[in-house]
Amino acid sequence: MFRGVLRVNPHRYQIPRFSAITSSSQRTFVTGKTTAKPKRSRRRKIGYAVGTATLIGTFSYLITQDYLFLQEAKGAHEQVPFLALHPERGGVKNLPVVTHQLDDLAQDEGKPRLVIIGSGWGAVSVLRNLDKDKFNVTIISPNNYFLFTPLLPSVCVGTNEPRSLLEPIRKIAARVRGHFLEAQAIDVDIENKMIEVKSMRLMANDNETEGKAEHFYVPYDQLVLAVGATSITHGVQGLNHTHQLKTVQDAMAIRRKVMENVEKACLPTTTPEQRKQLLSFVVCGGGPTGVEFSAEIFDWINEDLVKWFPKLLREDVSVTIIQSRDHILNQMDVHISEFAESRFKRENINVVTNARVVRIEDNNVVYKYKSNGDNEEDLHSIPYGLCLWSTGIAMTPFVQSLSEKLGIQNHQRVLLTDEFLRVKGVPDMSIFAVGDCATIENPKLIEHIEEIFENSDKNKDGRLNTEEFNDVIAYIKRKFPLTRQHCEKLERAFEKYDLDHSGTIEIQELAKFLRDIDKKVTQLPATAQVASQQGEYLAKYLTNRTNNPFIYKHLGTLAYLGNTAVGEFTWGYKMIGGLYSMYLWRSVYWSEQVSMRTRMNLSLDWTKQALFGRDLSIV
Amino acid sequence: MFRGVLRVNPHRYQIPRFSAITSSSQRTFVTGKTTAKPKRSRRRKIGYAVGTATLIGTFSYLITQDYLFLQEAKGAHEQVPFLALHPERGGVKNLPVVTHQLDDLAQDEGKPRLVIIGSGWGAVSVLRNLDKDKFNVTIISPNNYFLFTPLLPSVCVGTNEPRSLLEPIRKIAARVRGHFLEAQAIDVDIENKMIEVKSMRLMANDNETEGKAEHFYVPYDQLVLAVGATSITHGVQGLNHTHQLKTVQDAMAIRRKVMENVEKACLPTTTPEQRKQLLSFVVCGGGPTGVEFSAEIFDWINEDLVKWFPKLLREDVSVTIIQSRDHILNQMDVHISEFAESRFKRENINVVTNARVVRIEDNNVVYKYKSNGDNEEDLHSIPYGLCLWSTGIAMTPFVQSLSEKLGIQNHQRVLLTDEFLRVKGVPDMSIFAVGDCATIENPKLIEHIEEIFENSDKNKDGRLNTEEFNDVIAYIKRKFPLTRQHCEKLERAFEKYDLDHSGTIEIQELAKFLRDIDKKVTQLPATAQVASQQGEYLAKYLTNRTNNPFIYKHLGTLAYLGNTAVGEFTWGYKMIGGLYSMYLWRSVYWSEQVSMRTRMNLSLDWTKQALFGRDLSIV
Repeated sequence: MFRGVLRVNPHRYQIPRFSAITSSSQRTFVTGKTTAKPKRSRRRKIGYAVGTATLIGTFSYLITQDYLFLQEAKGAHEQVPFLALHPERGGVKNLPVVTHQLDDLAQDEGKPRLVIIGSGWGAVSVLRNLDKDKFNVTIISPNNYFLFTPLLPSVCVGTNEPRSLLEPIRKIAARVRGHFLEAQAIDVDIENKMIEVKSMRLMANDNETEGKAEHFYVPYDQLVLAVGATSITHGVQGLNHTHQLKTVQDAMAIRRKVMENVEKACLPTTTPEQRKQLLSFVVCGGGPTGVEFSAEIFDWINEDLVKWFPKLLREDVSVTIIQSRDHILNQMDVHISEFAESRFKRENINVVTNARVVRIEDNNVVYKYKSNGDNEEDLHSIPYGLCLWSTGIAMTPFVQSLSEKLGIQNHQRVLLTDEFLRVKGVPDMSIFAVGDCATIENPKLIEHIEEIFENSDKNKDGRLNTEEFNDVIAYIKRKFPLTRQHCEKLERAFEKYDLDHSGTIEIQELAKFLRDIDKKVTQLPATAQVASQQGEYLAKYLTNRTNNPFIYKHLGTLAYLGNTAVGEFTWGYKMIGGLYSMYLWRSVYWSEQVSMRTRMNLSLDWTKQALFGRDLSIV
Repeated sequence: MFRGVLRVNPHRYQIPRFSAITSSSQRTFVTGKTTAKPKRSRRRKIGYAVGTATLIGTFSYLITQDYLFLQEAKGAHEQVPFLALHPERGGVKNLPVVTHQLDDLAQDEGKPRLVIIGSGWGAVSVLRNLDKDKFNVTIISPNNYFLFTPLLPSVCVGTNEPRSLLEPIRKIAARVRGHFLEAQAIDVDIENKMIEVKSMRLMANDNETEGKAEHFYVPYDQLVLAVGATSITHGVQGLNHTHQLKTVQDAMAIRRKVMENVEKACLPTTTPEQRKQLLSFVVCGGGPTGVEFSAEIFDWINEDLVKWFPKLLREDVSVTIIQSRDHILNQMDVHISEFAESRFKRENINVVTNARVVRIEDNNVVYKYKSNGDNEEDLHSIPYGLCLWSTGIAMTPFVQSLSEKLGIQNHQRVLLTDEFLRVKGVPDMSIFAVGDCATIENPKLIEHIEEIFENSDKNKDGRLNTEEFNDVIAYIKRKFPLTRQHCEKLERAFEKYDLDHSGTIEIQELAKFLRDIDKKVTQLPATAQVASQQGEYLAKYLTNRTNNPFIYKHLGTLAYLGNTAVGEFTWGYKMIGGLYSMYLWRSVYWSEQVSMRTRMNLSLDWTKQALFGRDLSIV
């Protein structure tokens, strides 16, 4: 019956659908196409066979899945707590207090409340490493998904689809039976241990958002801040003309813009100057995001644009990276940076180093070389069709207000925590911060010089011999774990700091030693790697599986350069270019995915891109 | 080297990325996790092996592809015609006239210009069936992709991804070396054979759209209108509160709204009444779109919502279909409609028949039963969280202005064409119309009764014997091909129309015969199937491969009902329910795809949905 049904459709690209006309078999309409039929029908049969196999597999699985779920759903209808449906009001502002949740289970009653704000690397890492039954967990975030940020640049041109980078936070939170609230934290009442939260507008069809937002309190016993950061402006005017690349919406907007500009460049009324402008991509910031974005743009141009658009366009495309330092990728080894720069040069990606963006105009990025003055005649201007702003991070308004509320916070860009990731200035130490929104406050060893000296000068002779100097290092490592990495490098430093070759270290010489360490202990970078390790640590710390302070283990760094990649790894190996490096780059990111679904999606995206190219549709 | 590199990362979910800290191997940080390591590393190895295989395949292909393209691109740098870069001005409004295109080839010079407006079923069907080298083809559309409309409802909940339904129009047009302009046709200068076209805003960063749009003329020798239709309002107020489902953006907006409403329903400040409203989906129109949308919503609720959201929500979901006729799916067989209704009843989809929507309020759909009066007390009101409006089609403003310009057009909803799809009222017959924007004007046989009678009454006795009556039918079939299907059913109708049993048909009896045919010849439905057949026909007609008028061959009709489907086919078979029918439904749509890319995407979407469920992320 099945084959009979399929064989009946003699036209290949006509799709049966609804019709007001009654059926009738009509055989009189003869076209000239009869000779072509046998070939077509063979091809169709093969097509159907493949389709059939695929669909039978899919379908059998579906039935099993659905059956299992229905059984499960039947038994799972718990009573919803009365207070979940009708929360009592309270707190300073007399708002509803969410003491119970719609999906609270009886066995979660009385467990300590762990609230996580955010759904990025830090939050997800906590969720994935937390013991299953220790906490009643609530996640609060305006995004109901986790985003795999390192691959965002590839979404800008369609190498990967946005949803291949996303995993619903509800699925990640299911392991610890976490509750998710799609809402935004706007304030913390530290005294009463409650977070003030703002829902998005409630009713479906009101156009005013702000007036309709509902505020409520979520009480916590332990609070994890993992809210990330915004972009730093450096006081540059006109950033509203630029795109950023922090969210999946940013990436989708860039993709639309890139495609729209290319389509506009094809219009007959576009002048040659306008065409050059439309196809000029300017990237402010030579960090990994800017570099990888440039590489993706060039991949797209070389692999797709030339195939499907007028050839003329290829010559009008330009990519410019404006970097304030000596090199792009300046956080990596200088050889890597130089390789990236020479490769970009070959690809006609214009790298402007030692330059500072002065302002963004409607159609021009205005910049100056650092060595030049600030006069108008020293300024350079470059027209753009799309400008990406990716220069660094700054505090979100929520973090900023919290930082101001906690008196002793004095960092401009992040919250300061101690080495256990506890936010400084919180009396009961119940607030933690991970990822881009926080940094661990570095100790200033020099402020502790007397304590260090006295503790190690065992024989009280006012100077340190070799043995006593080793005690100094051991003491510092124990008391200031953040310095540990640097202390290790200095273990044979006795001779170096014995400046007067007296055979002992005097207090002035110790001061130099401590200052040198202080200089070397820098802040941890705002990377996924750091956030992820912090989240894992915190999950252990919260459930008393560790009492040690947090130590960051740098595993390595990678950047994609357009069908090649660069990287450096902890044990000293540097990967510079070569085709295999793109493959390695993809493998590493593939293995770091949080779910099999996103793994499968990524593999399929890469395969599809190779087979069919990127999709050119503007949606 | 490769394996060594990968083995180095001992943490599973930490992603190497950029860091300001210099590398150093740090071994002192010990966690409690060592016992779990052997198992993990085995799993990781398997993961890497799978990844490696996938990536090697992908990668080898990539290299080949890129090499081939680079070779091709090198030789393909043609001279761009001067006039393509600097079009001359002309026409009534003295606008740029696009006589040459950026990607014109020398061999296309002098070929007749075929311009196709639109990128839907009709346009694509013309493109796919056109002879390769007969025309210089230009496609004008605001969308640079073809959309597989029949599967749009499945995008509303994420069963399929939007890009799985899209194929870039440039890839389809490449076969005939067509030029694509992303722009909107706003007027036709029939006398000078030029289309006035409006580009979208030109420069990248201006916020005012309208002022910056550029207008230009595109000259044509033959013009095909395939612009589709908009939704009919039936004069109902408040449609701005509703969603439509005609574009991929519509479907994506609905998906966002559905997910947002569900997330809002989970918030603790949402009252039970608000929750019910947020989860109330009201569908105005019981045609295939409305029915399939309802089915998809229910699939989503039963397969995904219950798994990941508080169980409570399941009971608060409602779907209501408001249909003006006796049955939903009223264009199909009544048994099919009844099956659909009984199935929906079982699934708690509320079907309201014989009802008319009166107005859409902010949060309520107001309707009345047709049998009732128009008083306020006769009105019913149903709260909604999302309302889908899918009740029928109307002319786009462009078609409307063209229709008014052509004097003899008198149809309210579409352009009238003759049986060769030529728009009526165009002096040189150079404008054609296909798909939802047009309909073939039906002949009124009764107006031709004298001609028909005289021509067939061979013996001039003022009445028709059996043989002469057969001549009548043959004559009608020849002269009025649209009636052919109905004439065939009437071939043995002599006795039926010999009302006075005189053994001959008199002129009054012939009049009844002709009127009966006139009644039966209805307009073709606004379906993908019709548009597609018209496009194929037109491609042949334009290249003189046929001189016959267009005849529509109805192949069948399908509708998805939520893990089952219904259908009816030309040769009288009806498919009513059963699990295999969903499978058949998918197979048919799969085989009708315009590219292997979308075929692969659809198969993968279905597989992924079965394996992992739908994505819940709101993007």
